[in-house]
Amino acid sequence: MTMGLKVGDFYEERLYTDLLDAGYAQKFEVTRVLEDTRTDFQEIIIFENPTFGKVLVLDGIIQTTEADEFVYHEMLTHVPLLAHGNVRDVLIIGGGDGGILREVLRHKTVEKVVMVELDGGVVDHCKKHLPSLNGGAFDDSVVSADDDGIKYVRETANRFDLIIVDSTDPIGPGEVLFTDEFYNSCKAILKEGGLLATQNGVPFFQPDEVKTASKRLGPVFSDVTFYGAVVPSYIGGIMTLAWATDNDSLKDIAEFVLTERYVAAGLKTKYYTPAVHRAAFALPPFITNLMK
Amino acid sequence: MTMGLKVGDFYEERLYTDLLDAGYAQKFEVTRVLEDTRTDFQEIIIFENPTFGKVLVLDGIIQTTEADEFVYHEMLTHVPLLAHGNVRDVLIIGGGDGGILREVLRHKTVEKVVMVELDGGVVDHCKKHLPSLNGGAFDDSVVSADDDGIKYVRETANRFDLIIVDSTDPIGPGEVLFTDEFYNSCKAILKEGGLLATQNGVPFFQPDEVKTASKRLGPVFSDVTFYGAVVPSYIGGIMTLAWATDNDSLKDIAEFVLTERYVAAGLKTKYYTPAVHRAAFALPPFITNLMK
Repeated sequence: MTMGLKVGDFYEERLYTDLLDAGYAQKFEVTRVLEDTRTDFQEIIIFENPTFGKVLVLDGIIQTTEADEFVYHEMLTHVPLLAHGNVRDVLIIGGGDGGILREVLRHKTVEKVVMVELDGGVVDHCKKHLPSLNGGAFDDSVVSADDDGIKYVRETANRFDLIIVDSTDPIGPGEVLFTDEFYNSCKAILKEGGLLATQNGVPFFQPDEVKTASKRLGPVFSDVTFYGAVVPSYIGGIMTLAWATDNDSLKDIAEFVLTERYVAAGLKTKYYTPAVHRAAFALPPFITNLMK
Repeated sequence: MTMGLKVGDFYEERLYTDLLDAGYAQKFEVTRVLEDTRTDFQEIIIFENPTFGKVLVLDGIIQTTEADEFVYHEMLTHVPLLAHGNVRDVLIIGGGDGGILREVLRHKTVEKVVMVELDGGVVDHCKKHLPSLNGGAFDDSVVSADDDGIKYVRETANRFDLIIVDSTDPIGPGEVLFTDEFYNSCKAILKEGGLLATQNGVPFFQPDEVKTASKRLGPVFSDVTFYGAVVPSYIGGIMTLAWATDNDSLKDIAEFVLTERYVAAGLKTKYYTPAVHRAAFALPPFITNLMK
């Protein structure tokens, strides 16, 4: 069963929201249909839009677009990597489009990346239709497609400086990646001073995501907070990314240190700067009040 | 001529964008129609939506909603007022819904506010249907409805510490508020060390607004920059607010000074904090590159 999407249609996002009866949607004109199918796990659509370029949709939710993917991928990668300063082993859970992998591999300190993506279909379709997202990165790392993130973190003997969770929202196949069990397993496979960073929804529409993640991460790590990134196609304003570590000093790292590391890494970015990194931790009260 | 909007319809925003053929829209379910009419200047619609509450639309563009108006009104008011520290005379151009006036009047340093709104119809309809936006503020200040902002700044003998331009986008009646002539007249009626702050669009969709404002404000003021605010119903991510003054130190004011002033003012805010204020000036390169 597919959507039967046609050129000239408008694709309407069935917004995932904690608010009942949101009565709100965003819609994208479809100027080309590249994929409209089901994998073993979810419905996958890739279409083209005049403003956003190619748009990836999983189970009705916009995952990424060519025009604004840089915001999410830069912020979920460079903020933890440059705050840590010496990340060698990285685990990516999810991330089937390859954007996180691409950004992680820009860091010369990184020696090994393991990516565990439940749905190999997403990897295949994104390789084919969204090559700019992975930028060839799939060739340079261990990608375990069709592997289960929660099972992997429970069973692996590997240890990581950084775990990045680039998942769908906590409904459908992504739900297990927001549980106590998952967070505890992540902690157990982090090296000393290591860090967990996860996508955590848009609080204006999904206030419960920050509340729930706060409650579940709080007992597991000594320092739990959230930082913001503003991704145009994730409607509702500021998106939060969760930050969990036992190294309490990581989030307060000085801007001049970040600048040294940024310059040394030779990064070229369109959203991230050391100043934007520091500023991302200054969230408005309507969001910080959800963390209590 | 009206839209003929009915309960159960979806109101679709005809997005104003510099990008040709955006192929993108946001849509709001209409659960109540409060106003659907034309003033002498523009089409005005006020409807209710389950998530955003009452929504004000002028000439097809969302101006404000009950659920997220606090972001825009706090940031366009408290940032310049607390940076300056001793604002006594304020001029508001536009602002017919009363939200800016309400926030300005929270500051005890303020002795006099003049508000010049071209369209008295907007003031009347907002007083009637959106009382929380003005919070009774219209009773405590000089409101010149049906008065022309560009004419006012050209002719007035009054002088101001702060001018806030809360206008529609630079098409239709708001266009003159983005011209060289307007900016020069504002400068002439600012007191020494005074400041101009204006709404300046969402650069992801309207990159030319930042480019144009930079070019026009640059020759007039010694310090021209932009700061960000993220308003959910202004889709496209970060909105920019322009900042123009001959007092170059205002934008670099230390957070502890802002905190002293914030506490002294007794403000209660949902988006603004002194940390958010400082962070708002850290804009991503995809926006700062437009300022050059």
